Amino acid sequence: MVHLDFHPSGRHFLQIPGPSPVPDRILRAMSYPTIDHRGPEFGALGRKVLAGIKEIFKTRHPVIIYPASGTGAWEAALTNTLSPGDHVLMFETGHFATLWKKMAEALGLRPEFLGLPGIEGWRRGVQADMIEARLREDSGHAIRAVCVVHNETSTGVTSDIAAVRRAIDAAGHPALLLVDTISGLGSADYRHDEWGVDVTVSGSQKGLMLPPGISFNALSPKAIAASQHARLPRAFWGWAEIIESNKNGYWPYTPNTNLLYGLSEALDMILGEGLEQVFARHQRLAEATRQAVRAWGLEIQCADPAVYSPVLTGVMMPDGVDADAVRKLIYERFDMSLGQALGKMRGRMFRIGHLGDCNDLTLMATLAGCEMGLKLAGVPLAGSGVTAAMASLAAHADKPVLKAAA
Amino acid sequence: MVHLDFHPSGRHFLQIPGPSPVPDRILRAMSYPTIDHRGPEFGALGRKVLAGIKEIFKTRHPVIIYPASGTGAWEAALTNTLSPGDHVLMFETGHFATLWKKMAEALGLRPEFLGLPGIEGWRRGVQADMIEARLREDSGHAIRAVCVVHNETSTGVTSDIAAVRRAIDAAGHPALLLVDTISGLGSADYRHDEWGVDVTVSGSQKGLMLPPGISFNALSPKAIAASQHARLPRAFWGWAEIIESNKNGYWPYTPNTNLLYGLSEALDMILGEGLEQVFARHQRLAEATRQAVRAWGLEIQCADPAVYSPVLTGVMMPDGVDADAVRKLIYERFDMSLGQALGKMRGRMFRIGHLGDCNDLTLMATLAGCEMGLKLAGVPLAGSGVTAAMASLAAHADKPVLKAAA
Amino acid sequence: MVHLDFHPSGRHFLQIPGPSPVPDRILRAMSYPTIDHRGPEFGALGRKVLAGIKEIFKTRHPVIIYPASGTGAWEAALTNTLSPGDHVLMFETGHFATLWKKMAEALGLRPEFLGLPGIEGWRRGVQADMIEARLREDSGHAIRAVCVVHNETSTGVTSDIAAVRRAIDAAGHPALLLVDTISGLGSADYRHDEWGVDVTVSGSQKGLMLPPGISFNALSPKAIAASQHARLPRAFWGWAEIIESNKNGYWPYTPNTNLLYGLSEALDMILGEGLEQVFARHQRLAEATRQAVRAWGLEIQCADPAVYSPVLTGVMMPDGVDADAVRKLIYERFDMSLGQALGKMRGRMFRIGHLGDCNDLTLMATLAGCEMGLKLAGVPLAGSGVTAAMASLAAHADKPVLKAAA
Amino acid sequence: MVHLDFHPSGRHFLQIPGPSPVPDRILRAMSYPTIDHRGPEFGALGRKVLAGIKEIFKTRHPVIIYPASGTGAWEAALTNTLSPGDHVLMFETGHFATLWKKMAEALGLRPEFLGLPGIEGWRRGVQADMIEARLREDSGHAIRAVCVVHNETSTGVTSDIAAVRRAIDAAGHPALLLVDTISGLGSADYRHDEWGVDVTVSGSQKGLMLPPGISFNALSPKAIAASQHARLPRAFWGWAEIIESNKNGYWPYTPNTNLLYGLSEALDMILGEGLEQVFARHQRLAEATRQAVRAWGLEIQCADPAVYSPVLTGVMMPDGVDADAVRKLIYERFDMSLGQALGKMRGRMFRIGHLGDCNDLTLMATLAGCEMGLKLAGVPLAGSGVTAAMASLAAHADKPVLKAAA
Repeated sequence: MVHLDFHPSGRHFLQIPGPSPVPDRILRAMSYPTIDHRGPEFGALGRKVLAGIKEIFKTRHPVIIYPASGTGAWEAALTNTLSPGDHVLMFETGHFATLWKKMAEALGLRPEFLGLPGIEGWRRGVQADMIEARLREDSGHAIRAVCVVHNETSTGVTSDIAAVRRAIDAAGHPALLLVDTISGLGSADYRHDEWGVDVTVSGSQKGLMLPPGISFNALSPKAIAASQHARLPRAFWGWAEIIESNKNGYWPYTPNTNLLYGLSEALDMILGEGLEQVFARHQRLAEATRQAVRAWGLEIQCADPAVYSPVLTGVMMPDGVDADAVRKLIYERFDMSLGQALGKMRGRMFRIGHLGDCNDLTLMATLAGCEMGLKLAGVPLAGSGVTAAMASLAAHADKPVLKAAA
Repeated sequence: MVHLDFHPSGRHFLQIPGPSPVPDRILRAMSYPTIDHRGPEFGALGRKVLAGIKEIFKTRHPVIIYPASGTGAWEAALTNTLSPGDHVLMFETGHFATLWKKMAEALGLRPEFLGLPGIEGWRRGVQADMIEARLREDSGHAIRAVCVVHNETSTGVTSDIAAVRRAIDAAGHPALLLVDTISGLGSADYRHDEWGVDVTVSGSQKGLMLPPGISFNALSPKAIAASQHARLPRAFWGWAEIIESNKNGYWPYTPNTNLLYGLSEALDMILGEGLEQVFARHQRLAEATRQAVRAWGLEIQCADPAVYSPVLTGVMMPDGVDADAVRKLIYERFDMSLGQALGKMRGRMFRIGHLGDCNDLTLMATLAGCEMGLKLAGVPLAGSGVTAAMASLAAHADKPVLKAAA
Repeated sequence: MVHLDFHPSGRHFLQIPGPSPVPDRILRAMSYPTIDHRGPEFGALGRKVLAGIKEIFKTRHPVIIYPASGTGAWEAALTNTLSPGDHVLMFETGHFATLWKKMAEALGLRPEFLGLPGIEGWRRGVQADMIEARLREDSGHAIRAVCVVHNETSTGVTSDIAAVRRAIDAAGHPALLLVDTISGLGSADYRHDEWGVDVTVSGSQKGLMLPPGISFNALSPKAIAASQHARLPRAFWGWAEIIESNKNGYWPYTPNTNLLYGLSEALDMILGEGLEQVFARHQRLAEATRQAVRAWGLEIQCADPAVYSPVLTGVMMPDGVDADAVRKLIYERFDMSLGQALGKMRGRMFRIGHLGDCNDLTLMATLAGCEMGLKLAGVPLAGSGVTAAMASLAAHADKPVLKAAA
Repeated sequence: MVHLDFHPSGRHFLQIPGPSPVPDRILRAMSYPTIDHRGPEFGALGRKVLAGIKEIFKTRHPVIIYPASGTGAWEAALTNTLSPGDHVLMFETGHFATLWKKMAEALGLRPEFLGLPGIEGWRRGVQADMIEARLREDSGHAIRAVCVVHNETSTGVTSDIAAVRRAIDAAGHPALLLVDTISGLGSADYRHDEWGVDVTVSGSQKGLMLPPGISFNALSPKAIAASQHARLPRAFWGWAEIIESNKNGYWPYTPNTNLLYGLSEALDMILGEGLEQVFARHQRLAEATRQAVRAWGLEIQCADPAVYSPVLTGVMMPDGVDADAVRKLIYERFDMSLGQALGKMRGRMFRIGHLGDCNDLTLMATLAGCEMGLKLAGVPLAGSGVTAAMASLAAHADKPVLKAAA
């Protein structure tokens, strides 16, 4: 029998950019007794989470909650709005943008992949002007949708979605705007309605602090209208039946009840702390992390300071250093998991997750583990990133974080 | 804020035919810390559950585990093996067979729905001879797949899958055999390889005693071969990439780690008790339930004793009695949830689940709740079902159920 | 390594008269993170439970919460109020009264044990008239305290404490009244102030539904005054320091934080259901149990209907039947634990606990397990107790128990 | 209703010297279902923990497990071995030694308190030569016991118990040796048999990583013999009945079942890691902490490097700095609890706990929180303690801590 408590004494530090550590509050909520998904209690649960999740997406329109992980919500966004052979414009920001494009191909769409050349495109966000230019060329409006990733989990670059919206509008183009914020939601500011997004895709295991297993499509009226004519086959992912059932707090098929308990608790935690406070905390942690990377004399993977991610930070290794060997040393010696580099970046960087249920001291532990591990791995450091991060965090010491006991 | 502990003092009895009550052992396992799904520990977990689940399906071939609920696994079975417009033969055994057919239509297939007329078809299992006759007519082999439900959750009828296999073979027909045993797996005997099934669909929230959220496709080599030519679009559900990743215990996208912890524990529980012992327990509980129904003078929904379900029992109400009113009374007065009748049976019966983590005394509580509720609802009863069930259970008292403490 | 999940599939039925089954809500609360017992948060917890527990005892005076199990609270009641060699009057109601007397002797007191002869005294409650007569004889007031057990866990007899108070008053005697309601509190009505009790002793693992590990002394001003002159040595059990610390919600030494979390949740559950509703539920369950015993043609251990316990019911075996053999059969065959007979009753009866987190259907499961086990053990039964219990419970069906979902 | 989840987003750092953070593994074990404490399963649990705890104390003799917190085990050690008015020699090492002496007085003993003058005695360990000299004076052997604290939780000084044993032997004195290692056990090396200790007192909420609520007396044959003649009244604490019941794995009164589940898991964790590895880990963490304190230019409270505690480190504040104000700032700003100074040290220091389930990165978080907090509080620091601690920890990087996944 395989023993599943793998970790030695002391807490494991899961500092990958998701799944993020699940807080005890959420684990406890997930252990509430499973109930009849057609019974009266379930409706109360369903209505609560359906209302709360809208606040997180900042939308007044329906949000679909799927009992499936995030990759499924990508598929749902495409199959509900598009038809076989449709031309879609996608932007290469990293590994996950690439995977989404690959999925579009698998589903029989014709994605066109815009982007900056080489790895440069992986170190900067979406270039809205390129999208605008391309759409202007498409005078026949063959392009049915523009697909972009809000927060690239593979790199630590956050794109400016409002700018993409402005680009589409400037081009006077009717394409739908589909956005993946799987790793951004609940950690980075996101505004579905204000930014004019048609479908936003997200998942549970990042800023929402849940285990993987539920995912989301936030919709616009325009997206719902498009779904009535879209001809890609769909059943499990179909919006119409779900929207109808959701009116009373139910689902047309068995929902993931225990993860919805967790979602309910996550909503209480996030809205209790305050969405803007949550974003500010992530910005504080991300800034301290970047100060650490700079003090080490290492390079931040994201090359454009305007789009640094508040969710994760990619740390470039000097030439000749195998990032995965550093990660392995840190894992074995300090019981901390860091994110592996993916795709074009493989072996050249590691990713530090500072999302979800992270706070100042957990971040300091993380950065200390990195600093000790880098030194033990023989990576020459310019100075102490830990010291720099402490200075950064202490500079935000104007107000206490702890709620007074009632 | 909605309070999610809905139940008053004492344990809620969740006696619907799934989701079944999640044992504390599994809830505890689901609270293990989430780990890096690309790290070395995860591989050990993945390899364990992938090996164990094969024992449950009684197969030597790959079993796909999806981070999605059971309805998704239906879609996966169809999209991986079939092409747009394909003719499939489905058999109407009840509400879930009907929903699967509806899904086939939504996906662009052309399902043909065989079945006995009226509600008669919902009270008997698959008629293998009808399938054989239909296949013999199809000399051109236009029919690409035969789809049947092993255990109809909506009625309490279990079909003879081996007979369906023999029917296909007798007709000399190359159609694939796709079987849904979402509610049967782990409670009713099931033999993927021996019965020659090509794709078996199942889920987590029934005999496996997990919350909803993961689901399965067990494959045959013939199904895998078919998937290489099937042209229905698919990405999330695609087998090929998953089979490849699974070789080392990983998945191509984020798996539902905490539910896999639960699955690991469920496998330990089921294989520890012994699969045949688990089946015998379900048979014992189902037989006692039927004795109770007969003693009450009520009718068992399943009209064919050869195919009584060991998972659930449908109880027909006398004319003029609204089954849902009885259920509501029992729910409010005794804090027990029974299964609502679905589709053609609506209002005419209720369903008693006796699956998963159920034992003799839990069943007795359930039957006592039914008996008291029926009386309070004014349903005339011929005698005490509870007394009959006790006699039935006591007759199996030849050996103790409790393992001696080591 | 010993595996601690002893139970086979399905829920174990722990139907001893305590420890009672701990509800999941309380187990979850007990898993809140341990906090600094001198920090600000702890004070909020301490003040909450200290206020709430007074409502349970129905007192306005201090209640001491010890981080120790119930036997310790017996000792505390004696050592805080008495001096070496003190004469105390105790009443033999059963095994626990006998153990308390034995403890008094071990502590250097001189207990006098009143009681009815033979096992008769174990089948009836405290005889207040015997106490009154004895106190009248004690014109010199040598007797310092009267000690009685409110609910005898070993038999299922509940004594009339108000009558004891009246007896003491009628005798014009200044003795303190010390009462053990370890198994009664939270299940049987109890009124510390109204009944004029000086020290009430209780514990966590019965009506409060917690694991063993905390216990209580509810005090009267007269008891507190007595403690200032009592000369039995004491430190851990000393009231004075605890009362002083408790004023701010703290303890003079490390409290059992996680059990206090559990207590906080138990208070929410009990006071949420309503104390009188909790008592009525226990009366309903106890009455149904007695109807079952009578229908079986067996004898209820408590010989005086006026003092039947709402907490547990002792069931006498016919001559020649070994009650422990019946219990063992039920344990091994139906995975249910019943209470062993203790002391003078050993082997002649078993005890059914129906306290704490018990409801109608759990009781029905319990009685069905008893009935099947008795039959399998060859005990001749006059009729079906289960049928009788159902009739009894159904007769209380005037109102629903389930709170409507908000 | 008081909300008990006091903490904001992210993990609370409980870095007081006990209660120490309870690992999730232990919380999960504590949620196993409560069982009949007289049933067969309980014996298996009892025998396991009674055998395992002997390994932790390094003894072949009985270890008593009380369902009470540590202060009770102090009382048990005294009342089982001594008689009213007995002369006992106690040594002032800090606040807890002082409280134990106060308890001895309350119980009617005559403690004599040896010690170095002023706060000096609180900054050094037990002076064995003073004990030897005092015992030599006691030619009439009026002194019945020598009582010392192994690890002073109030200061961070660990005394040399073997030296005390040698002192007693050198004086040829028959006094019993009673030792408190409440905060040392399971974190600092301790050898009950080898060091010739007669009664060792300990508790659950420190190195054993459990919540408070169980405590221990490890005995010697000489202590057991003494208990047969000791005349202090005792009942709950009495060893004889417990030793007798323990032979089969049971207790004479209700044990704290759920905390015993936790103890069972703690034993698996500690003995699985290896007792010597656990001690080495604590030494590594303590040394890194001291390097931090020195780098800050602050003074370690323990003035004798030979007896630095591996459990906690006291950090002296410069004159004029209120240690409690620093603690409060750190608590409110960084959600970390540090230990308050007690008794003679009040306000002059804080205590950092690095015991139990602590590892390198948790310690780094702790030290970073201290460093940032000290700076924000305006305490002038000579340098970065965090940097010094990282250097210290990295120097122990010769082998990985993580067990390979099986």
